[in-house]
Amino acid sequence: MKTIYLDNNATTRVAPEVVEEMLPYFSERYGNPSSMHSFGGQVGKEIRAAREKLAGLLGARPEEIIYTSCGTESDNTAIRAALAANPGRRQVVTTRVEHPAVKSLCEHLVKEGYRVTFVPVDRSGRLDVDYLYEHMTEDTAIVSVMWANNETGVLFPVEQIARAAKERGIAFHTDAVQAVGKIPIDLSAGAIDMLSLSGHKLHGPKGIGALYVRKGTKFSPFLIGGHQESGRRGGTENTAAIIGLGRAAEFVSDHMEEENTRVKALRDRLESALLSRVTHAVVNGDPENRLPNTSNIAFEFVEGESILLMMDGHGICASSGSACTSGSLEPSHVLRAMGVPYTAAHGSIRFSLSLYNTEEEIDYVVEHLPPIIERLRQMSPFWQHACEKTA
Amino acid sequence: MKTIYLDNNATTRVAPEVVEEMLPYFSERYGNPSSMHSFGGQVGKEIRAAREKLAGLLGARPEEIIYTSCGTESDNTAIRAALAANPGRRQVVTTRVEHPAVKSLCEHLVKEGYRVTFVPVDRSGRLDVDYLYEHMTEDTAIVSVMWANNETGVLFPVEQIARAAKERGIAFHTDAVQAVGKIPIDLSAGAIDMLSLSGHKLHGPKGIGALYVRKGTKFSPFLIGGHQESGRRGGTENTAAIIGLGRAAEFVSDHMEEENTRVKALRDRLESALLSRVTHAVVNGDPENRLPNTSNIAFEFVEGESILLMMDGHGICASSGSACTSGSLEPSHVLRAMGVPYTAAHGSIRFSLSLYNTEEEIDYVVEHLPPIIERLRQMSPFWQHACEKTA
Repeated sequence: MKTIYLDNNATTRVAPEVVEEMLPYFSERYGNPSSMHSFGGQVGKEIRAAREKLAGLLGARPEEIIYTSCGTESDNTAIRAALAANPGRRQVVTTRVEHPAVKSLCEHLVKEGYRVTFVPVDRSGRLDVDYLYEHMTEDTAIVSVMWANNETGVLFPVEQIARAAKERGIAFHTDAVQAVGKIPIDLSAGAIDMLSLSGHKLHGPKGIGALYVRKGTKFSPFLIGGHQESGRRGGTENTAAIIGLGRAAEFVSDHMEEENTRVKALRDRLESALLSRVTHAVVNGDPENRLPNTSNIAFEFVEGESILLMMDGHGICASSGSACTSGSLEPSHVLRAMGVPYTAAHGSIRFSLSLYNTEEEIDYVVEHLPPIIERLRQMSPFWQHACEKTA
Repeated sequence: MKTIYLDNNATTRVAPEVVEEMLPYFSERYGNPSSMHSFGGQVGKEIRAAREKLAGLLGARPEEIIYTSCGTESDNTAIRAALAANPGRRQVVTTRVEHPAVKSLCEHLVKEGYRVTFVPVDRSGRLDVDYLYEHMTEDTAIVSVMWANNETGVLFPVEQIARAAKERGIAFHTDAVQAVGKIPIDLSAGAIDMLSLSGHKLHGPKGIGALYVRKGTKFSPFLIGGHQESGRRGGTENTAAIIGLGRAAEFVSDHMEEENTRVKALRDRLESALLSRVTHAVVNGDPENRLPNTSNIAFEFVEGESILLMMDGHGICASSGSACTSGSLEPSHVLRAMGVPYTAAHGSIRFSLSLYNTEEEIDYVVEHLPPIIERLRQMSPFWQHACEKTA
């Protein structure tokens, strides 16, 4: 059975051209880039070239990139760095719909005695920016707002919020793990101080992330050890993955237009076909201001887990919420924050596409998913109850 | 020119059989192991198998393994976890010869208000265990002692120290990054609470490490995010590298005897040949109680950097001190702690072998290195001064 992979916000296929570039760095050019000999030194040069490629994708300078092991480490580093750099300030401002990498950390910070403001969103997942502005105070060490929501794809006005934070002398961080590679980003002109990204969300390998830290931003290392990353992150450089991430940055940059035309059109085709063929189905999240690859659809009166299982039987991969929260039976905190009713939140499915998806795959899903929903609804007491009420 | 790689304590060649095992996890089995669909779920199964392999190398249970991104992260996690778990205790006991991953962190902890005891070593690099025991107090949150020194290869009696710590109710951690894969380790019977290891030191990939945490040990996560690693370390699993580390664990286990016979014999052959051909050359560190692959030799009255440069001209890779401290012109903190005189510490070279080294390579070094030392000494004012004094 062919796999139809529509779960690219969980992780992506490493582009074969990325793997090809990584390969020599395992068993041939395996030297430690910090070593004194040229066998290691030549690897150091390749890392510098990869850093320039990644910086290029963001409109950043190479020295503003710190390699980390993942988006979670980037997020932890950014927020901890701001707190360490401003020990007198005890408040963090973030949103109610962040990824667990920020959300769990912020909940932990509350236990450590910090004050955390979780800014609400409306029914469409749009951020209450006025609420955010009202809650920035002289005690705020950092404002951390995601660029694109991983579940709904909704985009937040992070550049505007970053400017507002800067005016108040507050550091601004964005978890841009879902945005980088999908929408054009140029940090050079803006006010964003720190930005997190993850290799495996943009057709690079797992186990590599980066934190952009604007020149001049107060910083304090999170992983403390050797002098790597100009003393900002200890640990031997993950050479192959850094090289791979550089190539992946080129890859997504080369395909940025395709992502925002062909992939977006596939997403729209999937969404409109499903909405027209399935009753009581609605899109979660502002349809006008979303990532081009994401569609989160609530199929009312059915269980998301059951839909996923039955889709899995047809080789279709999607998700209900974040892979980082799976295993939990609670409905998504993102959809709850948006006020999506229980009966809809539980049956919400995230479809997230990539450059590798084809029209045939979308048509296959459009053919097989509506009967699945139909069958599940026939078995659902909620559905029967709803039908009786309507009738 | 052929590369003769004698810098395996800095990093190792990824075994080709390890790379082969990793390869499918980039562009084929790329699913997120936390995903609900079987495309991701099957990867989760492979991770469980890899975890069992790594646990097997250590005599540990699979659930006692937490994957991290590197040895540095493992060390930071262990020490921070012990401090978080024992907030009333404000002292850390460690040694004066730790790797920067522990040393820099401990120096940082002093700035945070913790009290750190750095236990001294003698002229042979042997730990002053009595001093250590005398400095364990009711205020000690953790004792962290490396298993094998990365520069000299000297082994510390960590199992004995762990038992002493346990008797006093103190957590014990060992940075075993250099020991794992080179000497047999069985944690099941002992008293070690936490152990750090790194994939790239044992023919696995860079960017993956592990922290062993004995069942029942109080623990608090360092990287806070998703539910991965049973809630003990957030961040998407580094699938390919985890699979690779599992295979590497098998690889070094299969070659453990060879490491301690053939590789050790090569190291001894190199060492004795150099000592017999070069005057004023001495081994740094207890020759009786060392890793089988490491030889640290002081060539008095010459600069280590110059030796490395000239060896590099012959394709020979070695190091002066740790790659993680390179770039610094200070002589090694390990050799200074041992009281190695300045004129000897500055000309100390670490040779660290691996399973891939051959007799021919060793003979090549024995042929080319003595003339290099000779030439450098002819140019050295210290050498001329020393000769005049002797004459």
